[in-house]
Amino acid sequence: MTETSRQIVLTGRPEGGQVTEALFELQDVPKPEPGPGEVLLRAVYLSLDPAMRGWISDTPNYRDPVPVGEVMPGFTVSEVAASRHPDYAVGDVVAARAGWRDWAVSDGSTIDRKIDPAVAPVATALHVLGHTGFTAYLGLMEAGQPVAGETVAVSTAAGAVGSMVGQIAKLKGCRAVGITGSDDKVAACRERFGYDAAVNYKAHPPVDDLAAALGAAAPEGIDVYFDNVGGEISDAVLAHINVGARIVVCGTMGIRDVAIGEPQPPGPRVNRTLLIKRARMQGFLFFDYVDRMPAAIAELAAWVREGKLTYAEDIVDGLERAPAALVRLLAGKNTGKMIVRVGPEPG
Amino acid sequence: MTETSRQIVLTGRPEGGQVTEALFELQDVPKPEPGPGEVLLRAVYLSLDPAMRGWISDTPNYRDPVPVGEVMPGFTVSEVAASRHPDYAVGDVVAARAGWRDWAVSDGSTIDRKIDPAVAPVATALHVLGHTGFTAYLGLMEAGQPVAGETVAVSTAAGAVGSMVGQIAKLKGCRAVGITGSDDKVAACRERFGYDAAVNYKAHPPVDDLAAALGAAAPEGIDVYFDNVGGEISDAVLAHINVGARIVVCGTMGIRDVAIGEPQPPGPRVNRTLLIKRARMQGFLFFDYVDRMPAAIAELAAWVREGKLTYAEDIVDGLERAPAALVRLLAGKNTGKMIVRVGPEPG
Repeated sequence: MTETSRQIVLTGRPEGGQVTEALFELQDVPKPEPGPGEVLLRAVYLSLDPAMRGWISDTPNYRDPVPVGEVMPGFTVSEVAASRHPDYAVGDVVAARAGWRDWAVSDGSTIDRKIDPAVAPVATALHVLGHTGFTAYLGLMEAGQPVAGETVAVSTAAGAVGSMVGQIAKLKGCRAVGITGSDDKVAACRERFGYDAAVNYKAHPPVDDLAAALGAAAPEGIDVYFDNVGGEISDAVLAHINVGARIVVCGTMGIRDVAIGEPQPPGPRVNRTLLIKRARMQGFLFFDYVDRMPAAIAELAAWVREGKLTYAEDIVDGLERAPAALVRLLAGKNTGKMIVRVGPEPG
Repeated sequence: MTETSRQIVLTGRPEGGQVTEALFELQDVPKPEPGPGEVLLRAVYLSLDPAMRGWISDTPNYRDPVPVGEVMPGFTVSEVAASRHPDYAVGDVVAARAGWRDWAVSDGSTIDRKIDPAVAPVATALHVLGHTGFTAYLGLMEAGQPVAGETVAVSTAAGAVGSMVGQIAKLKGCRAVGITGSDDKVAACRERFGYDAAVNYKAHPPVDDLAAALGAAAPEGIDVYFDNVGGEISDAVLAHINVGARIVVCGTMGIRDVAIGEPQPPGPRVNRTLLIKRARMQGFLFFDYVDRMPAAIAELAAWVREGKLTYAEDIVDGLERAPAALVRLLAGKNTGKMIVRVGPEPG
């Protein structure tokens, strides 16, 4: 009897940017076997990320859209279950791009690095010691360039990236101001992640009210804005930036997804604000900074070992629940890094 | 009989951003006399600048608005006509901020530097070797960071700053693409200033058409955009930026002037474009870069001496014509650096 492997494929494109469970289909396929030079990877944890909305949309992006009918890609923590590759042995744990499936074969090109389970729980390779951590650390440090004493504002402040940005800002001696979407998340920002102040933007629905609340939360103005949303929340932040401010455009969850080259959704023009404040607004993707990653890993791992980084995980059990979990993530209803536990811990 | 001095004072604020001659009034006042530690300056040339619209508007800006009833400020080339200041002698020519008047006294704080009339015609201190030159050079080099072989697009390409940016881009080994407002200016860009291509945006009225024309003018995309206008012209440029592009926000003549903190005029949101292109949009004012000015003057002066910089001056005669000339400048009808000849050449 052939062993089977479950996988989830993309079945269509989000209409109007709306991601639904119906866009995904769970399939049973034969368990793959590694050929010469290949390894067999067993998925342990699967990362779900806001950027996945862009990955599956049929609009020009920084990568080609996932083809309909293909297995949904995703970052994983995987265990090497069989190896015909000289660099990997059975039992190795790796950070990989193995996608939404139980079993995958790899020639090594989809493996990013080996993980030492002694350093930290292996799931951290999907966030604090993975691309979430790199995004937060490199986005803040390289594009945001915070200086001790400055004020750093963060949107989706209690989220996977945001909560790390806030903590790193504090570790670097800055005042951290969080913007988030519920009173519970405000409490998490203040109590778990150490923000100096946090604002529930849903409690301040018009932009003007949010701007006033931000003014109270950042009485000396905002020097760095780590922006995961764009849209009206960011409009309110821009009313409070200081001369020389740096705005790190890391995500655009608050803006409808339209192809570049097509007319973008309207909002207030930023030119005069940027000019008068001599401010900088910069799109950031961590994989442009691969040369800076070793330094990022070193500093982040030290903070993890010293217990200086608090992280929140929102783990759901079972590959079959990944689509619903992604929808929940994109609705902002997660309470930390969104992870699917696909199989048992390694070893 | 008391000698008189003419001066022009501001009488009101532009309504809806509209600058008219009626906002200025010519007055005769007694010629001032220098006190101890002061010099008497005779205005030779007065610079008119697009930024003056911002100076006289009652909206938060990078300087306080010019008070109604006060002499209109402005950069001048002035001759020292009398001196009770140890650093200045009669006959010295200086770059000063003496305002719209025949005679001014200064304690030295409004004098920026001495000018050597042997290096170049003294009026160049108001443009190529003055703040126009610094704006073009430092804005392009510090904020734009062009690399040889890249494409640099410039709006108001035949204007005072724009024409210099285009030439400096060429001197630095880049492809220069100009955007300007008439066929005559397109010809000036190509023939006088050496742009590789130039587009008349008024011949391509909808943004889509302009974007197509820019695509033809910049077949390899745009790496640096030196933006003097904002608005729909810039929307078209953004459709063609490359990964890693730098947008220097140097002026916003194409955007209605609204106080920072108030809702800005609407336009397409730039966040997704900046993110996907990992591009940077940065407000620039040259006086943030005073430490880089000596190097800028040195390189610019060398180019002037070697005849490598072509500059266009649009000189009107007589202080009384300054208001009309400013209105003409803000309407984009000038044909080079707008200068008022207030009095005879020095010496």
